Amino acid sequence: MTRNEDKRAAPVIAAMIGDPAGIGPEVTVKTIGSGELDGLCQPLLIGNIASIRAAAKRASLDLKFAVVDTVDDISLVPGTTFVLDPGDLDAASYRTGVPSARAGEAVMNWIGLADRLAGEGRLDGWIMGPIDSTSLKLAGVDNSIDGLQPPGTFMFRMSGQLRVVPLTEHIRLRDVTSTVTQKSVSDLIRLLDRTLRRWGVTVPRIGVAGLNPHAMFEEDLHEIAPAVQATRAEGIDVDGPVSPDSIFRHGLNGRYDAIVSMYHDQGQIALKSAAFEGACTIYLGVPYVRLTVPHGTAMDIAGQNIAQHFSMLSAFRTSAALSAGRGFLA
Amino acid sequence: MTRNEDKRAAPVIAAMIGDPAGIGPEVTVKTIGSGELDGLCQPLLIGNIASIRAAAKRASLDLKFAVVDTVDDISLVPGTTFVLDPGDLDAASYRTGVPSARAGEAVMNWIGLADRLAGEGRLDGWIMGPIDSTSLKLAGVDNSIDGLQPPGTFMFRMSGQLRVVPLTEHIRLRDVTSTVTQKSVSDLIRLLDRTLRRWGVTVPRIGVAGLNPHAMFEEDLHEIAPAVQATRAEGIDVDGPVSPDSIFRHGLNGRYDAIVSMYHDQGQIALKSAAFEGACTIYLGVPYVRLTVPHGTAMDIAGQNIAQHFSMLSAFRTSAALSAGRGFLA
Repeated sequence: MTRNEDKRAAPVIAAMIGDPAGIGPEVTVKTIGSGELDGLCQPLLIGNIASIRAAAKRASLDLKFAVVDTVDDISLVPGTTFVLDPGDLDAASYRTGVPSARAGEAVMNWIGLADRLAGEGRLDGWIMGPIDSTSLKLAGVDNSIDGLQPPGTFMFRMSGQLRVVPLTEHIRLRDVTSTVTQKSVSDLIRLLDRTLRRWGVTVPRIGVAGLNPHAMFEEDLHEIAPAVQATRAEGIDVDGPVSPDSIFRHGLNGRYDAIVSMYHDQGQIALKSAAFEGACTIYLGVPYVRLTVPHGTAMDIAGQNIAQHFSMLSAFRTSAALSAGRGFLA
Repeated sequence: MTRNEDKRAAPVIAAMIGDPAGIGPEVTVKTIGSGELDGLCQPLLIGNIASIRAAAKRASLDLKFAVVDTVDDISLVPGTTFVLDPGDLDAASYRTGVPSARAGEAVMNWIGLADRLAGEGRLDGWIMGPIDSTSLKLAGVDNSIDGLQPPGTFMFRMSGQLRVVPLTEHIRLRDVTSTVTQKSVSDLIRLLDRTLRRWGVTVPRIGVAGLNPHAMFEEDLHEIAPAVQATRAEGIDVDGPVSPDSIFRHGLNGRYDAIVSMYHDQGQIALKSAAFEGACTIYLGVPYVRLTVPHGTAMDIAGQNIAQHFSMLSAFRTSAALSAGRGFLA
C-alpha cells in the first residue's frame, strides 16, 4: 500500500499512541471507538498492542485490532483497526501512570518509524500522541521535546481561527533580533504559502508581525518590510509588518489564514490567551502532515478511563482534511 | 472644595473631553445624561463649553451646565453638570471632524490643568478623553501620545479580569533585556502592590512574567527570580517568574489581581487577543487615578451622534471605585 494517489479519497493517518503509561492509548481508542473517523481517513495506530487493548477494555470498547509488522499489510477493512507494533516494548517493563526509561525508548522508536514511513510516502500524515518528558529524560534523550522537532522545520500552531508560525522557538529574547532578517522572513513566508496551498487553501492570506512595538523600528522597516514586498512581488497575498499587538486579534477575526510571528512568545501569548479547544501544532517543512496533540500524558489520571478524547479526534480530523487538500475545518 | 476626606463618599472625578473636534464631547455628555453616575461620583468636565453644549444638543440631552473658572466653585448640585472651561479655545477656530493646531494646543492646556488640580488633591481622579495625534502634531507636540505620560509612571492596562503593567513601553525589542534588572522588577512590584492596596485590593495577588520562553534563561533566574523572592520576603503576595505564554491565561482566569510584564508587547498581545469591552489604561505612580479611555477621536463619525459612550461610562465607574478605595468592579 502506498500513499493514496487520489488525495480526495480517505488518506492514511497514523496515530503514534504516545507514552503507553499515559492517557495516549485511552484517547486514541476512544477516538477510534467514536466512529467519527469512518469515511474520513484510514487510521493506523503505532505503539504497543498491550497498552491499546488494555485501554479499549477499560473503556468497554469492543474494537477489533489487527496487529501488523509492516504498513504493507494494512488495508481498509470496515470494523478493523490496524496496529503497527514493532514489538519493542514488553508490557511488564512499565506501569500505567509511571514514566519510565523503557517507555521513553519505545516512544523514540515509534516516532522514528512514523517519520520514516511518512517520509517514504506510505502515510499521508501522522499524529504524535502525548509523550512524557520524564520518560524521555530517563531514556537519555537530551534535548527533551525541543529535540524531537525535525531539522529545518517550523512549528505551525492553530487555535480557533488563529494560526501562527514563529521564526524561532526556545531562544533567549536578547538573541531574537539577530534572527529576523530579510532572508529568514521571506523564506518562511514562501514555505508557509506553499504549504497552505498544498493543504487546500486556494489563495492563502498571510500576515506578518512586526518585531518591535507598533512595528515602527529599524528591523520592521529594513528587514521585515522588504521581505514582505519581495514575496508580494512573487504573487503571494502577504501583508505586513503589522503591529504585534494588533495582528493576532486580526487573525482571531479571520483576516489571515496564517500569521508569521517573529519569536515564540509573540504568537504563543495570543494563542494561549484566546485558548480555544482543539488547538494543535503541525510541523511546517515536511511533505506530510505531522501533527502534535496539545495535551500531556496526564499520568495522574492515566488508566482511570476519564480522559477526554476531543483533542485526538480533532487531530485526526485536521490531519485528514489537510493531507487530502481540503483546507482548514470551519 | 478639597479632595474628599471620606474616601467612601462620592469622589470628584474630572473628564477632560479630549479633542473637541472628535467624539469626546459626545461620549462625555451621553455618559452624564445616562444618569449612571448619580451617587457614584461628583463629575466635572474640563474643556470648552461650546463643544459640550453642541454635543448635548445633537444628542437631544436636556442637561444644565454651570461653567466655572476654578474648581473652588463646584459643588454637588443635583441636575447640574459643572464645566471647567479656561476659555482658551474659540469655537470658531476648529471644525467638528477635523484635527487642528488650536484644538491640539487647548487639549495640552486641559491635560496640564487636570494634572495640576489632581496633583494638588482637588480631584480624586481624572479621565483623559480621546485625543488626536494629528492635532497634537499640528500643535507642535513632539513626542505625540508617548510624551503625555507623566515621568516616572507606568501604564497599568485592564481588560476583563486581565490587568498588566509592563516595565517598558515603546522601546526596541533588542533593548528590552537590559531594562530587566532585579532593581527595576522589584521596584515595580512594590509600586504595584502599594497602588493596588490604595485602590482597595486588600491583599493584592501579583504575578510576574518571565522574560524568555518558558522563563528558563539567565535573566529569568538571575534578575526576575531574586526580585520576586526579595519582595515576597517583604510580605507581598507575588509569584514568578511565570512562563510568558501561560501567565496571561492565568490572569484572565482570575489568579492574579495584576501582572508585571517585561515589555510592552508581552502584555498588549494578551490584552488585545482577549479583547474585552471596557478596557482602559491607568497611570501607575501618581497619587490620583489618572485613566485614559481606550478609543480614539473617531473623526469620521464625530458630530453624527452615533458614538457609543460605553468606554467613557466604564472609565468613570472604574475611576470612582478605585479612588474611593473600593477595588476593581466585578
